[in-house]
Amino acid sequence: MEKTLIFGHKSPDTDTICSAIVYADLKRKIGVNAEPARLGSVSKETQYALDYFNVEAPQYIEKVGDDVKNVILVDHNEFQQSVDNIRDVQIAEVIDHHRISNFETKEPLYFRAEPVGCTATILNNMFKENSVTHTMETAGLLLSAIISDTLLLKSPTCTKADVEAAHVLAEIAGVNLEQYGLELLEAGADLSDKSVLDLVTMDAKEFSMGEAKVEIAQVNAVDTSKIYQFQTDLETEITQIIKDKQLDLFLFVVTDILNNDSEVLALGQAKDNVEQAFDVKLDDNNRALLKGVVSRKKQIVTNLTGTFK
Amino acid sequence: MEKTLIFGHKSPDTDTICSAIVYADLKRKIGVNAEPARLGSVSKETQYALDYFNVEAPQYIEKVGDDVKNVILVDHNEFQQSVDNIRDVQIAEVIDHHRISNFETKEPLYFRAEPVGCTATILNNMFKENSVTHTMETAGLLLSAIISDTLLLKSPTCTKADVEAAHVLAEIAGVNLEQYGLELLEAGADLSDKSVLDLVTMDAKEFSMGEAKVEIAQVNAVDTSKIYQFQTDLETEITQIIKDKQLDLFLFVVTDILNNDSEVLALGQAKDNVEQAFDVKLDDNNRALLKGVVSRKKQIVTNLTGTFK
Repeated sequence: MEKTLIFGHKSPDTDTICSAIVYADLKRKIGVNAEPARLGSVSKETQYALDYFNVEAPQYIEKVGDDVKNVILVDHNEFQQSVDNIRDVQIAEVIDHHRISNFETKEPLYFRAEPVGCTATILNNMFKENSVTHTMETAGLLLSAIISDTLLLKSPTCTKADVEAAHVLAEIAGVNLEQYGLELLEAGADLSDKSVLDLVTMDAKEFSMGEAKVEIAQVNAVDTSKIYQFQTDLETEITQIIKDKQLDLFLFVVTDILNNDSEVLALGQAKDNVEQAFDVKLDDNNRALLKGVVSRKKQIVTNLTGTFK
Repeated sequence: MEKTLIFGHKSPDTDTICSAIVYADLKRKIGVNAEPARLGSVSKETQYALDYFNVEAPQYIEKVGDDVKNVILVDHNEFQQSVDNIRDVQIAEVIDHHRISNFETKEPLYFRAEPVGCTATILNNMFKENSVTHTMETAGLLLSAIISDTLLLKSPTCTKADVEAAHVLAEIAGVNLEQYGLELLEAGADLSDKSVLDLVTMDAKEFSMGEAKVEIAQVNAVDTSKIYQFQTDLETEITQIIKDKQLDLFLFVVTDILNNDSEVLALGQAKDNVEQAFDVKLDDNNRALLKGVVSRKKQIVTNLTGTFK
């Protein structure tokens, strides 16, 4: 039987991994030979969710193999965030909640993007639409994705649909939303075993803004100063990435999950755009505190893109 | 109350006009201040449907005005097929059944594309999802769109979902599907009052294929030779369009609605791509018969795009 591969973006986060696993499960239940995959390593936060619900991580792939008939993208659509040979494969579906950019197909497809906080919220609706009931595992993984993407329902990207889905899913998964949510986020904010290179690459995404190439990396932390004690090493790694990828701007975002602010480090010839986008002044260390900013998608990408017209 | 404008593509066909009208109706019923609009003149086929169900054509617009908060695109997504100032407006939603190309947004949106034969089939589902019942008018207009886009359910683009929707909608609209369908298509194939320029522009769409600019115009006819008696005039008009728009290829497609074939006329420096795409030889008049080809989207665009790699 022909195989459909389902995967999220590079530098996978909890929504990308869990949505791939759960959508493959839903697809198999309605008769599609679907397998989940991942394009990068599993974060501590995601591993916490997988361990809690006793689910294995999907297979790692470098590119889509010849045995795959078509692919389904979850949690992304921009080709530069996807598998390297994305232009050579048949895209059957996209399920996403991001802006649409740098995406095209030769043929019609099923494309479903909704302006909600998390891909998992859309997938939860698709279980209903297909009359498939959740297991504890599928509910638990979708819940984990929502908690992760909405910072426990506190991000400005969080919608009523995400809140409702989270409460229903927590019930089915048999967990206390608040307690499990904090445990999950804290597992993700444990950066003790990370190298400086890990920090700037583990959740990094590249964007085209006007003519500019911009990379934005984000880490969650309980204490942002613990990250910035490595300022010099961070700058060394980021400067190398800017050179290798010929970026105009690299924005490193450290998000304080307790206070819901972000302290950013901006490097590259277009770093002034950060000042303009957020009406702040970068200090001598090229850093600035962005009060109330936690969402890369809704607060950072949107504001920055506007400055690259 | 802020206004949302809903419109389909330039050179509007019956799906584009009817989907805009009906989706605006659905939106108003769920509390959105929506108005339909059109980007070109109403075809005879569409006018037949509007007259039959006693519905007025939407307002014609040249560009989106300043009083509009956001827009909803139906039946298209490629910017070159949309309103001229599309890059300056906020796109809230897209409901479509075409390939995705040359489309991007700065922010997340509701984007729903399904690989079905007609936008109206998706809208029919959205009535159900929103628990809004059809009137005779909304059912009749959606039915007309399905008949038009699927050539009375005979096009290879037609899916099970389109067939099911058409039968249900015919019942609500109170018409005999086969009889009303033929009347509608015949009204569209009446080209007696058209100028040669009308013929090559009334349902023309521009596509980017690789680096090439390709325009494909399609007309339905009961007797294709009646069109090609104007071969010389057709070539004069098309050659002018190629020059004005700097096209690499203009493909004029005359579809025989009784035999379900198309006779095409290819002009432009890339006309050899047509021979390659359909494995045919153009005759001395730059024409070829494409047996069984009726769908621009599924049969023509797909095959041609592959030759511009």
